[in-house]
Amino acid sequence: MSEGTEQVKIQRITDRERLEAEDTVVREFPLTIILNNQELVTLLCSPAKLRYLALGFLASEGLIREKADVKSLLLDDRRGVVRVETAGPTPIEQGSVFKRFITSGCGKGAAFYSAVDAAQAKVESATRIAPDQVFSLMKDFQTRSDIFRETGGVHSAALAEGDRILVFCEDIGRHNAIDKIFGECLWEGIPTRDRIILTSGRISSEILFKVAKRGIPILISRSAPTDLAVKTGGDLGITVIGFARGRRMNIYSHPDRVKGAGDP
Amino acid sequence: MSEGTEQVKIQRITDRERLEAEDTVVREFPLTIILNNQELVTLLCSPAKLRYLALGFLASEGLIREKADVKSLLLDDRRGVVRVETAGPTPIEQGSVFKRFITSGCGKGAAFYSAVDAAQAKVESATRIAPDQVFSLMKDFQTRSDIFRETGGVHSAALAEGDRILVFCEDIGRHNAIDKIFGECLWEGIPTRDRIILTSGRISSEILFKVAKRGIPILISRSAPTDLAVKTGGDLGITVIGFARGRRMNIYSHPDRVKGAGDP
Repeated sequence: MSEGTEQVKIQRITDRERLEAEDTVVREFPLTIILNNQELVTLLCSPAKLRYLALGFLASEGLIREKADVKSLLLDDRRGVVRVETAGPTPIEQGSVFKRFITSGCGKGAAFYSAVDAAQAKVESATRIAPDQVFSLMKDFQTRSDIFRETGGVHSAALAEGDRILVFCEDIGRHNAIDKIFGECLWEGIPTRDRIILTSGRISSEILFKVAKRGIPILISRSAPTDLAVKTGGDLGITVIGFARGRRMNIYSHPDRVKGAGDP
Repeated sequence: MSEGTEQVKIQRITDRERLEAEDTVVREFPLTIILNNQELVTLLCSPAKLRYLALGFLASEGLIREKADVKSLLLDDRRGVVRVETAGPTPIEQGSVFKRFITSGCGKGAAFYSAVDAAQAKVESATRIAPDQVFSLMKDFQTRSDIFRETGGVHSAALAEGDRILVFCEDIGRHNAIDKIFGECLWEGIPTRDRIILTSGRISSEILFKVAKRGIPILISRSAPTDLAVKTGGDLGITVIGFARGRRMNIYSHPDRVKGAGDP
């Protein structure tokens, strides 16, 4: 049993019987982020890599940009509270307007939409990937998803380069899983630019904005994108690959980054 | 093709070939709710039953309680804006403290947690269900999920009584799907108390609070609950049934509402 799951007593009913049993359920943990002594948000998440989640969330919301912006970070994982102090004032304290934006996605439902987001730059990158690398990445990605296999209730995300997975995170929320990746990269000094993001979940528009902010040109999922995600991928210069399963995939935008059979 | 989907041009890569093709993707639509002339939130959702979604969202957040609370509701579905005016001031305007609470769930990530929520009453109900009714409901529920079958990217929710589905809604967000149900019930005068909710998605704690607020004693899903959902179901007096697939199911809390083989 991993730390992300819990045993509970259940009654199991089948056609033949009704019996007392034990079942493994995935954990759901409330993490409250206090930013500069002000309660910012409570995330419902899987209780692992909580520091990375807090940092990734703050970065995705445009409240921090780099490790140097963080003066201190104190996690009380018994109480489910993480206190972050920034080196300077954040856009919120500077009075930027932000807007509650609630997504269709798992986890991190709300986003502060700042003026910075609106002027989101298009991703320019010479990164290319071969279909065999996509197939190999997704095979590795599936193999690593332990909690998901155990309970059917967790999303995974990964940062990759070529056919190698560099960072891997899981969470009950698909947005949280991606924020954990970006928080880990920010804290550990792992570059994201020109690299690849893998996700187990559906691709919605908001994920494209997150990924563009990190300069990532390729997003791969085993699930489907929405129409708005396809459009946003096109606008932001991101190659969106969906339904990457076995030795098949669909390319929804910027297919030029996927090498052809005859390419060098 | 249903109104909830869109055709897009893709490149499909398999082991043998790379070809231009058409694919069906699910739509993702931004709906901004303006409450009493103040922009409240933008939901990313499926573009159907938008009035019900707005009403269900406001009810779930405790900003309205019944149809009489709504003075006017104007939907501009071209611009993606719904304007709601309430008969009296809302808890927000009355200065209630609310807290951003971001869930692991799909859709409706943030919730205003009011004092009312904190004092959530336990559901008392004499409703009982037989295993055969659960199996029959879930079979019907699966059959109705059209968009899901087409694109693999949509959640469903339903209100049921006995083995009959009364209201059925779909959305890219599982919270949105449930809010559409409650909005439809509120607007059309369909009682929810003592009835049953079905959901295609994972059961997280926040869904239990939503369901308790409607006096619903039984929640059934084909997916898994989290540990916090199981605990919350126990505390709020709700029977949580997960993995209801074929002729099997797991009961995670209050199993007394599921009739035994020998019961009358």
